[in-house]
Amino acid sequence: MRNTIYYCRNCGFKEELGKHYYWKCPKCGAPLDLIYDIEWRPKGLGIIRYRSMLPVQEIKYLGEGETPLIKRSIKGKSFLFKLEYLNPGGSFKDRGASLTLSYASSLGYSKVVEDTSGNTGIATTLYSRANNMQAVIVMPQYAPEGKKNLIRLLGGKIIETPTRPDAAKKVLELIDEATCYVAHTWNPLFFHANKTIAYEAYEAGFKHGTVVVPIGSGSLLLGIYKGFKDLVDLGLINTMPRIIGVQGASSAPIYELIYGKQYHGDSSIADGIMVRDPPRKHEIAEIIKKHGDIVVVNNDEIISSLKELIKMGFIVEPTSAAPLAGILKYMEDKSNVEEPILLPLTGSGLKMIDYLYSLLKKQ
Amino acid sequence: MRNTIYYCRNCGFKEELGKHYYWKCPKCGAPLDLIYDIEWRPKGLGIIRYRSMLPVQEIKYLGEGETPLIKRSIKGKSFLFKLEYLNPGGSFKDRGASLTLSYASSLGYSKVVEDTSGNTGIATTLYSRANNMQAVIVMPQYAPEGKKNLIRLLGGKIIETPTRPDAAKKVLELIDEATCYVAHTWNPLFFHANKTIAYEAYEAGFKHGTVVVPIGSGSLLLGIYKGFKDLVDLGLINTMPRIIGVQGASSAPIYELIYGKQYHGDSSIADGIMVRDPPRKHEIAEIIKKHGDIVVVNNDEIISSLKELIKMGFIVEPTSAAPLAGILKYMEDKSNVEEPILLPLTGSGLKMIDYLYSLLKKQ
Repeated sequence: MRNTIYYCRNCGFKEELGKHYYWKCPKCGAPLDLIYDIEWRPKGLGIIRYRSMLPVQEIKYLGEGETPLIKRSIKGKSFLFKLEYLNPGGSFKDRGASLTLSYASSLGYSKVVEDTSGNTGIATTLYSRANNMQAVIVMPQYAPEGKKNLIRLLGGKIIETPTRPDAAKKVLELIDEATCYVAHTWNPLFFHANKTIAYEAYEAGFKHGTVVVPIGSGSLLLGIYKGFKDLVDLGLINTMPRIIGVQGASSAPIYELIYGKQYHGDSSIADGIMVRDPPRKHEIAEIIKKHGDIVVVNNDEIISSLKELIKMGFIVEPTSAAPLAGILKYMEDKSNVEEPILLPLTGSGLKMIDYLYSLLKKQ
Repeated sequence: MRNTIYYCRNCGFKEELGKHYYWKCPKCGAPLDLIYDIEWRPKGLGIIRYRSMLPVQEIKYLGEGETPLIKRSIKGKSFLFKLEYLNPGGSFKDRGASLTLSYASSLGYSKVVEDTSGNTGIATTLYSRANNMQAVIVMPQYAPEGKKNLIRLLGGKIIETPTRPDAAKKVLELIDEATCYVAHTWNPLFFHANKTIAYEAYEAGFKHGTVVVPIGSGSLLLGIYKGFKDLVDLGLINTMPRIIGVQGASSAPIYELIYGKQYHGDSSIADGIMVRDPPRKHEIAEIIKKHGDIVVVNNDEIISSLKELIKMGFIVEPTSAAPLAGILKYMEDKSNVEEPILLPLTGSGLKMIDYLYSLLKKQ
């Protein structure tokens, strides 16, 4: 933690990393950011290749990062698919969980809690294993049994609540001196880890073009944005790529913030991006307004893109098809999409083979 | 295919690649090998990084290869785990399927058939997608429904037979002018692709020590052996690593060939290495005799190692735990195991979460 500083844009709070674990500002309760020096010295494999660009250097590596980048043409446009679903726990969330739990472990925490119904719970439990911590995951009782069993298999303890909002309340009761709260939608360490996606894409040949990013809590968008901003600041690329955010029709708060109107429709199939009130929504909206645009998709559009992806051999979950659905829809309306189009495929379909098969068979 | 030659050690048959697709010698029916020049010019990502070391250069890349290498200590010994389960289809079989189907596609084949009950069927279907071919997979009717559904999801057609040997017979009836037979236990292209595992381990820092390899058909052992032999021949490493083969008690033909005695026990849980009569068994036994040793494991030992691996955060299937069980057993009897110990973790557990959970809960 060489000179990394927790910083609150809202109240000005500052403190060096290494003393405390914060998931939000301890003074005013706003989301925190991090300030630190960066130096481009890639060395080694996985996310630890970019130690000199990250807020934390001691990372218990379990194979996260270094995901393949695959070139394919769709409707005459050149796409670069970043296979984030090939992370060790099956989603990009492994990057954030790795950085966050490595830091928490270095401070002596022995337990970790998180509220989630999905991939963050798996990533948290996986990296609690790697860091010798005990994970307690608070989930709504209706979460898929397969995801629960994976968490249990990895040694996580599950506490069930009637609803997802109940889980968000319950988790706060479990924080104590030995127990940290990941809080992936708030925690700055969590999204700073996603900068490495931009670095890897750059090293694999992506120097300019368009990036398409699904937005749930926005940790993926924030990380990728900051990663490319680093590359511009260091003079490694000339300009920021354009960033197209994609939200689901059932829950499109960033779209509503930018365009000032409600969106109606059903995108329940993309459960990974159904976040009603992202803590960093204003920051996300600012980035989108400055660097790109946002598009909203529904279940039919997502299923159509999911079929396309699986036909190409990408075994992904439905949420992962939202960005392709989004950019295809966007290109129908507007033609100013610079190629290549970098598109992260966020989560593995291997966890839900039978569900995927029955879903697509019906179509 | 610059000057790659099919070669039969048994009858001397030779033919340049580029005209025909052979899975065995067209003259005498013995297993074929390949002869070609190699040159160490790694460039790019995944298995295509090693084009200049492979028998085929035009490869339709889908993210296979470039799997993480993770250092962990077990019982005071330094292990390097190669996470082959993070290949796109969830197993190391993706490497062989990629090379084989890229070659078949270049010859104009539009269909591919394979007999399997497991990961090879998934890999074959996945790479048939990438190469615009139709896959027909012949499987025993008792194969797990989840694996069947993944094959169907990827667009493969399944033909069910009463038993696994029936599948091996049935598949031969399906070969025609447009249809090639992968035949992964025979096909030399299939195992030559696994050389890339040795190259990747070398580039990630493995220069000497011990390699532990599960042996079913032996394609993994043959590939890794040939990969390290290339590195010795090119002067990149000084000596061959020691190779410890691991077989399951229910089916240990290589052990029996080397030690001249039957092994009794149950290893049914490691279904991926239950191959009764590997076509290349004599070649495999020669390699083991010259460069290492072999050890046989049973269900209890495999389950114990599976628990250990999952506790460390490696989400693998039971077969993948056999090599760890093997080397731990081997070290109890003999102490001459040079470190580090390179150990590929071959297949993903994400495909069978509920099964793994119920299996390990019982213990």
